[in-house]
This record gives sequence, structure tokens and C-alpha cells, in this order.
Amino acid sequence: MRKLYIIGIGAGNPEHVTIQAIKAMNQVDVFFVTSKGEAKNDLMQFRKDICERYIDEPSYRTIEIVDLERDPSITSYTSRVEAWHKQRALTYEALLKNELQEDECGAFLIWGDPSLYDSTLRVVDQIISRGQVHFDYEVIPGITSIQALAARHKITLNGVGESICITTGRQLSAGLVSDTENVVVMLDGECSFKNVLNQEVEIYWGAYIGSDKEILLSGRVTEKAESIEMARSAAREKNGWVMDTYLLRNPSARRP
Amino acid sequence: MRKLYIIGIGAGNPEHVTIQAIKAMNQVDVFFVTSKGEAKNDLMQFRKDICERYIDEPSYRTIEIVDLERDPSITSYTSRVEAWHKQRALTYEALLKNELQEDECGAFLIWGDPSLYDSTLRVVDQIISRGQVHFDYEVIPGITSIQALAARHKITLNGVGESICITTGRQLSAGLVSDTENVVVMLDGECSFKNVLNQEVEIYWGAYIGSDKEILLSGRVTEKAESIEMARSAAREKNGWVMDTYLLRNPSARRP
Ligand SMILES: C[S@@+](CC[C@H](N)C(=O)[O-])C[C@H]1O[C@@H](n2cnc3c(N)ncnc32)[C@H](O)[C@@H]1O
Ligand SMILES: C[S@@+](CC[C@H](N)C(=O)[O-])C[C@H]1O[C@@H](n2cnc3c(N)ncnc32)[C@H](O)[C@@H]1O
Repeated sequence: MRKLYIIGIGAGNPEHVTIQAIKAMNQVDVFFVTSKGEAKNDLMQFRKDICERYIDEPSYRTIEIVDLERDPSITSYTSRVEAWHKQRALTYEALLKNELQEDECGAFLIWGDPSLYDSTLRVVDQIISRGQVHFDYEVIPGITSIQALAARHKITLNGVGESICITTGRQLSAGLVSDTENVVVMLDGECSFKNVLNQEVEIYWGAYIGSDKEILLSGRVTEKAESIEMARSAAREKNGWVMDTYLLRNPSARRP
Repeated sequence: MRKLYIIGIGAGNPEHVTIQAIKAMNQVDVFFVTSKGEAKNDLMQFRKDICERYIDEPSYRTIEIVDLERDPSITSYTSRVEAWHKQRALTYEALLKNELQEDECGAFLIWGDPSLYDSTLRVVDQIISRGQVHFDYEVIPGITSIQALAARHKITLNGVGESICITTGRQLSAGLVSDTENVVVMLDGECSFKNVLNQEVEIYWGAYIGSDKEILLSGRVTEKAESIEMARSAAREKNGWVMDTYLLRNPSARRP
């Protein structure tokens, strides 16, 4: 039976890789590496570096998958993403069938953790339900960019007994985030923190967290929004891409 | 200058330890190990096992800190916890002063990740603001029980573009959790999932996740609540303690 590992590798610090991930990587015959977007060269290089650093006998093959763009002619966001997942399922299915022998082991290396804003597991579910290729698979957790953000700012995500909401820039901008003490925002291309007007709210922001490009900024969001936006666009200009995450802490939302 | 590491060690699987954690552990002269609650012997043993497994030259000392109970005579939950943090700050401060030489390195090994429902960083902040003992410190992220739960169930925490709410059993029971698609519940001694009556909601539940005692159950919450509660109390009976976490997924809360 073919075996597939879905391995979380952390979000930028090669030392965030776990022992479990390293053990799995050392059993892999074929790494399927996807590339996408502006950061693709750097993210691809990071995966190669990790393989070189942690694999003892480098007898593995690497297959690069150039991810299709989402079809811009589909207007609904959800349908566009669904069509794209379906395409990916077909592509991955063919690769598993043709590039992996019956007794071999393949792997996807996932940025951060596979459970958080990543579609690989959904695509794998689709392949399984199509029933055209059979394999066992295992998911290996990784350090998320959220854990990395908190560690670098030396903060907890929650006060005693409080909740944490993890959301996207899109939802924050659309006002869809409920009034929680602690909001972590990911996938925000628009600096949605600019729209937070409550002067009590604090922001703990980080870009390229864990890597040697790392930038950390924090303070009252109304005071820092501008300088964060400038730092972000300067960094993006310089590196060709940027990934950033932040925690918004609202002391006045605190519940009894 | 004294150095202190706050190291996330994962939530039960010794292979969830990261390379960064292992490197730090190998520099430590004194491990401060706290013990608390019903699970204390097993959690203490887990930390000892990790040290033995990953530290090359075992020249470190270990100091066990028996955590004080929270003062039951303080009726407000928040004040009770605050008083308890203050006590811990005084205890830890004395230990850092007396048990760690000026040029030595100490560490706390944190269950899961230090940013999630753990007070060590708050206590460290208090020690620093008291200004009685000086040290550098670094926080090292760890795999949380949430990542471990998702990996073992082979699920993502969110659908495309959705939010995730992380909360406590107490908040869930009190009806304080907003209507989000994905709710992760921790610190729930009361099986608060029993109160979820929406038949569409699915639960992905796990206890002792990552360890060899692991139990995983999933399905519609209204159908599974009873069997999960029974499994939980049987396991608790057998092992003397139980730690469980779950994801509630509500497809009908999905937003456009
Ligand atoms: C598609 S999501 C993947 C998240 C990933 N699975 C994880 O566990 O962190 C990408 C988003 O994660 C955040 N992110 C990932 N890596 C980051 C890093 N090194 N620094 C800051 N943010 C990061 C950004 O918000 C980015 O838009
Ligand atoms: C005080 S909190 C600490 C959380 C920890 N810092 C983390 O990152 O997972 C303890 C709660 O975490 C959850 N938990 C921790 N370890 C677990 C495990 N191995 N299996 C299931 N739940 C766990 C339970 O909900 C438990 O009540």
C-alpha cells in the first residue's frame, strides 16, 4: 500500500521542525512540493533546506507541482476555491498514481500546521472519495505562525479563562468578527488593523516570523497602525513578498 | 546574566518536541518542574522522560515545585487566580535567585505551547516587574493539544476562509461563545458538549492525545455526547486523571 505523509514543518524557523516530522521525512521516497504566489521561490528553498538538513540518506526524489491559478472567471469566492480544489485533487491523484510505486512513501511538506488555513487535507479527502488511487496517510502537526508570533513577543494569546478568535483579514474588515478579547488575524493583505479605532486595543504584529527577515512591532493599534503598514510595504518591496500575522488584544471586551 | 527558557514540549507525544526545544534543553543547568492536580505524577514523568531522551550530557539539576492550591476562601475566580499568580511569582523569584548561579541557565518545560492557557509567562512578567532578580529569557513554541487533536483526526480546524474560536468549557456552558463555525473547547471538566442541541454540529473529541492512552471519538454531537461522556469517565477512573479537548463544527453557522 502507498503511504502518504502530510507533514507540518513550521512557518519559517527550520528549528521548529519536530522529531516526529524528521522521522517521517527520513522514510519518504517522493516529496511533492507545490509552489504558488510571490513567495514561491523562498518557500520552495526553505523546504529544500529542511530536507537537506534533516534527512540522513538523501535518496529521495522531489516533484515540483506548479499550482494552477484560481479561475478568475468564477465570481463566487467559494465556488472559485472549490473548483481549484477539484483541479488540485485531479493533479495530485495522477501524481500519486504515476510517481509513487505501490510500496513507496510520499509526502507533502506543509507550511506551519496542516490544520490551519491549508487545503491539502481537503484535497486528500477528495482524492480518497474519488477512489481511484489507494493509500494510507498520516498527518504530522507543526508549529503554526500563531505559536511563533506569541513566542517571539513573549506573550500568551489569552488572559485567564478568556477565548481566542482566529480569523482572516477579510472577516475582520467585513466586521464579521465578534467582540472577543483576543483576535488573531491571518491572511490579511489589506492591513485590516487600520480599521480598528478602539484606542484600548493593542496589536502584536509580526512578519516573516521565525526567519532571519523577521520584523516584530507592538503597541496600541491606533498609534502603531501607520508604522506597521509602512514597515510591511517596505519589506514587501524589498523581498518581493510578505507574510504577516497579528494578535489584537481588547481589554475592554473582557468578560466577568 | 542568568538565562531562562520557557520551553513548549508538546502535549503528550514525546516526538512532538522540536529541534529548537532540544537545543535549548541541552544548555540548561536547572529544570524547574511544577506539579499540580491529579495528573501530576504522569506529567512529571513525561518531562523526566523527555529530558532523558533528548539531553546528551545529563549534568542538569531538577527542582520540583509543588504548586500551591488556589485559595478557596477567595470567591471571585479572577481574584483567586491573581492571588495564586502572585504567590507563584514570589516562589519562582526565590528559586531563580537561590538555585541559579549568575551565569547559569534555567528552564520551565511547558505542556503544549506556552501561549495557550498557561500562566508561566504571566508569572515571569510579574517577577520582572518586581525587579528583584535579573535574567534574560526566551520563549520556545510547542505543538499544542489543538494541533495534535486535528492531526490525529486528520482534519482542518477551519473551512475555507472561516474563523476558529478557542474557548473553555466554562465559557461554552455559560453560553458566552459566539455563533462561529468552528469552536475548540479546552479545560472542560463538565462535558459541556452535552448542552449543544443543534443536530448538525459535529464533534471531534480526543483525550490523552498523542500519548499511548489516546482516545479519539467523532460524529454528530447529539448522537455521540453520551458515549464520549462514558469513555471520558471510564478513562478517568482507570488513570486517575483525564485531559480532553474537542472541536465543534457547526456547518449551519457558515457565512457567505
Ligand atoms: C495560508 S496561511 C497558512 C498558515 C499555516 N498553515 C500556519 O500554520 O501558520 C498563510 C498565512 O499564515 C500567516 N503566516 C504564515 N507564516 C508566517 C510567518 N512566518 N510570519 C508571519 N505570518 C505568517 C500569514 O498570515 C499568512 O497569510
Ligand atoms: C492548562 S491547558 C494547557 C494547554 C497547553 N498549553 C496546550 O498548548 O495544549 C490544559 C488543557 O489542554 C487540553 N489538553 C492538554 N493536553 C491534552 C491532551 N494530551 N489531550 C487532550 N487534551 C489536552 C485539555 O483541554 C486541558 O484541559
